[in-house]
Amino acid sequence: MHKELTAKGKATRDRIIEGAAAVLREKDVSIATLDDVMARTRTSKSQLFHYFPTGKDELLLAVAHYEADQVLADQQPYLGCLDSWEAWQRWRDVVVERYEEQGEECSLGSLVLHLGRSTPGARDVVVALMRQWQASLATGIRALQSAGHLPADLDVERRAAALLAGIQGGVAILQSTGRADHLRAALDQGIGDLRRAAA
Amino acid sequence: MHKELTAKGKATRDRIIEGAAAVLREKDVSIATLDDVMARTRTSKSQLFHYFPTGKDELLLAVAHYEADQVLADQQPYLGCLDSWEAWQRWRDVVVERYEEQGEECSLGSLVLHLGRSTPGARDVVVALMRQWQASLATGIRALQSAGHLPADLDVERRAAALLAGIQGGVAILQSTGRADHLRAALDQGIGDLRRAAA
Repeated sequence: MHKELTAKGKATRDRIIEGAAAVLREKDVSIATLDDVMARTRTSKSQLFHYFPTGKDELLLAVAHYEADQVLADQQPYLGCLDSWEAWQRWRDVVVERYEEQGEECSLGSLVLHLGRSTPGARDVVVALMRQWQASLATGIRALQSAGHLPADLDVERRAAALLAGIQGGVAILQSTGRADHLRAALDQGIGDLRRAAA
Repeated sequence: MHKELTAKGKATRDRIIEGAAAVLREKDVSIATLDDVMARTRTSKSQLFHYFPTGKDELLLAVAHYEADQVLADQQPYLGCLDSWEAWQRWRDVVVERYEEQGEECSLGSLVLHLGRSTPGARDVVVALMRQWQASLATGIRALQSAGHLPADLDVERRAAALLAGIQGGVAILQSTGRADHLRAALDQGIGDLRRAAA
């Protein structure tokens, strides 16, 4: 990715990324400039290009990685500990709340579209996010199996993939229509069917 | 929408829309021009502006309506006749095939993003498509109930909404990653859980 950095260098780079992320949550990626980022993060042009030598797209890709990490971080500690039905319900509430709050804006989605969905860098961010998210859901389903809440012969990966698809679709519909009904339906139906699989 | 047209006028307008749709399946909406549409449909500028007086965005919105209708038409006759488990399976196969063929391009999605997802016209196209699609799925679930294949107390709208969300998410992931696994998982899990609800 980028050259080896000292601890101080890494801290500066992280500060630039977080500042750029804040700028891009307020301003569309097509109109935000490096000057906006420099002003927000109190860095000079030479500092900025020291950490992101090829310029704006390199910084945007780093912000996309940061925002993808945030998507998962915002679901913690619940997503990492789905070992009871109560935990699944709390996680469900956090997901709905997060996306209702985010509403029609999606900084990560805008970044990926801007960078070009099919460019390797942008695609890698999305693929990695989907993989990690699905793995967390699968780990949660296996935890329910271990606790004896679900039968051992359940198709865990398919359940996790279907639930993830439902969330992504619910969020996409929320962003297109302003309503979270489909997100709620996908989560409630998905978790409900999982509970019914216990019987 | 547009002024009252004679049958011939309507035929010309439809021909322009279909030609524009063909152009936009080959060329990104941001670079396609009215000249491309005029060349493809053999119409003059004055004809084009006769049918679309305010210009490119009005034509693009008409194409978005057309593409939304195509999304549902491509699923027929299966989507309109989901009255047996076999019919659901055939519909599932058609949906997977359609989106695998479409791959990472989505003319409707690009149009809606280009027009601005939150502009009333573009939003109305998406809202209407989601509503009709979900209504068709709900009609199918009710047909299974009427035939005695599903219990009467099933939450039909939630099932239909969750299935639609799963499809949208599966397609979104396909467009971002190039893989249809999530679309297949959403459909197979959704239909599978519906079948299990029969027991």
